[in-house]
Amino acid sequence: MLGRRRAQVVGLGLIGGSIGMALRERGWTVTGRDREPTHEARALELGAVDAVGDDANAQITFVATPVRAVADEVRRALATTTGLVTDVGSVKGAVVDAVGDEPRYVAGHPMAGSERDGVDGSDPNLFRGAVWVLTPTERTDGHAFAEIRAVASALGAEVVSMPPEAHDRMVAVVSHVPHLTAATLMTLASERSTDHRALLRLAAGGFRDMTRIASGHPAIWPDICAENQVAILEALDGLISHLGEVRDVVANGENDQLRKLLEGAREARMNLPVRAARPTQLVELRVPVPDRPGAIAEVANTASELLVNILDLEIAHNAEGDSGVMHLVVESTRADELRAALAERGFAASMRKLV
Amino acid sequence: MLGRRRAQVVGLGLIGGSIGMALRERGWTVTGRDREPTHEARALELGAVDAVGDDANAQITFVATPVRAVADEVRRALATTTGLVTDVGSVKGAVVDAVGDEPRYVAGHPMAGSERDGVDGSDPNLFRGAVWVLTPTERTDGHAFAEIRAVASALGAEVVSMPPEAHDRMVAVVSHVPHLTAATLMTLASERSTDHRALLRLAAGGFRDMTRIASGHPAIWPDICAENQVAILEALDGLISHLGEVRDVVANGENDQLRKLLEGAREARMNLPVRAARPTQLVELRVPVPDRPGAIAEVANTASELLVNILDLEIAHNAEGDSGVMHLVVESTRADELRAALAERGFAASMRKLV
Repeated sequence: MLGRRRAQVVGLGLIGGSIGMALRERGWTVTGRDREPTHEARALELGAVDAVGDDANAQITFVATPVRAVADEVRRALATTTGLVTDVGSVKGAVVDAVGDEPRYVAGHPMAGSERDGVDGSDPNLFRGAVWVLTPTERTDGHAFAEIRAVASALGAEVVSMPPEAHDRMVAVVSHVPHLTAATLMTLASERSTDHRALLRLAAGGFRDMTRIASGHPAIWPDICAENQVAILEALDGLISHLGEVRDVVANGENDQLRKLLEGAREARMNLPVRAARPTQLVELRVPVPDRPGAIAEVANTASELLVNILDLEIAHNAEGDSGVMHLVVESTRADELRAALAERGFAASMRKLV
Repeated sequence: MLGRRRAQVVGLGLIGGSIGMALRERGWTVTGRDREPTHEARALELGAVDAVGDDANAQITFVATPVRAVADEVRRALATTTGLVTDVGSVKGAVVDAVGDEPRYVAGHPMAGSERDGVDGSDPNLFRGAVWVLTPTERTDGHAFAEIRAVASALGAEVVSMPPEAHDRMVAVVSHVPHLTAATLMTLASERSTDHRALLRLAAGGFRDMTRIASGHPAIWPDICAENQVAILEALDGLISHLGEVRDVVANGENDQLRKLLEGAREARMNLPVRAARPTQLVELRVPVPDRPGAIAEVANTASELLVNILDLEIAHNAEGDSGVMHLVVESTRADELRAALAERGFAASMRKLV
């Protein structure tokens, strides 16, 4: 590669600032801007960017603005650069639809956060061990996907690939509705103790854990609730309906039913996927991918569905024609399973051991 | 005091075993029993008790059985010993009513737990820094209360005093309903990811925190839900109704309302009382207490309501008559406030600085 790689970051908050720092640590030249001149000055001061402004030669643009501004900034970056564009918004379907048919755009959502808000909380290690979701579609170019994937992976994240709608439904269930529920539980406890503050001293570790996320800044939530309204309402309705069932179980003293519910939840909680351990034995799968839309997304999504961690991914194109071979590096213990799942979907992978 | 102090512990699980260990460390002779002979043998082996069985000379009996057995065991201990009796059940109203008019019984609830279940999880330091609720009533003898209070305090707990019904309403809101909610959220997430397990990888720290308590053993919940049914149903109804309001706010895009809700919750979460810091300057309040039922409970509850931590409490009776003087040691910064609140309730306290 000739010269230093160039990125631009639009929106210099916690995530944008952290991406800038992490890229600069890896030798990139980073240009960035923010609606707020004070954030730009602070980002420069903290070393989150090399320069303030736009970079027409950016190889990748990271859009890290509040969700409502993402689609416009993605379109702007696509129009003003020839590079790839990704974003970090916490809702994906609406923005993917709004941007439309753009092979150079790979929508993303790094699931990382910090107690500290804004550019001052920026940390080049914010993404180490975090899940970074990418939501490639049939329109996404395979190389663009592989490149964004490699960069997210280089920042220490575990990249998970899935369709935008699946992402949105799931974050409604595991993030948005839990957040609203934590706030509601806190409100309830606060109401019930108005004339006896000492009562809140009974809030032990479990309650503190459950309501911790309610101490975050509310500013982002109206946007998130608007962008992911359908999935949030669906999940809230599911929660309310299930709580109604629990209510009836308690009211009727149905102990077997109560035990069954709690045992099921306990088992699910214990099976919650954890971060992948560092693998020792690696295998490379070579998957010929035909020249049809979405093939690369389909292979990546298949691995994510099986919880197979892709440690490296490249696409080698044939000298002639557009079809190519995808090289996936995965842990050896999961390789056979992934190969079988790919075969079911019409992808014939070959395998070789590494190291 | 002549000889070693004697206690008996009925029910040798996590809490009973930990009480035994902590008392033995402080020089008590502890006798204990359990429905399960294997638990008794293990408690002896671990040093949670000196001997297995009953001790008719126990100065204090700690009933640490599952909640449904508490009332019977309390009555049994009152009938077979002349000492004081307390319990550790997580619901108080029903058992206090069931035991009836017994001055020697002081109902309690140490809010401590561990990842480890049963007597094998016993830890003499389990209560250090934990809140230990006592729920004295008009029937409770002042000396009995002061004595149980002193022992709980000696085990490292912060003692909070309140009426049994207030305790039950509050644990429904900050413990029982949050537990049921955590299980319900986990069930919902698990259902929504049945054909796409990878989606649960999106469960970041917030969701993990919120559902952690759902990984506990379900065995105790049918009893708790039965004993505290009224308060749990009332809190569940409150939660379901509030979640319905949140649903409408999201459905109608009422951003101001949403922000208001989240800001209120955030403020409440940040004001959640924390454990008291070690005080530097102490004051002794001397409160003459008339010979009427409940006077001592009223003074203790007043301090708890104000979040004033009582560091020591004694009752000095007059040579003649039943009225006495309660000595309360509190932090100097809160002494005036407590004295004023006591004055409002007809207790005229005098003050002197300590150390």
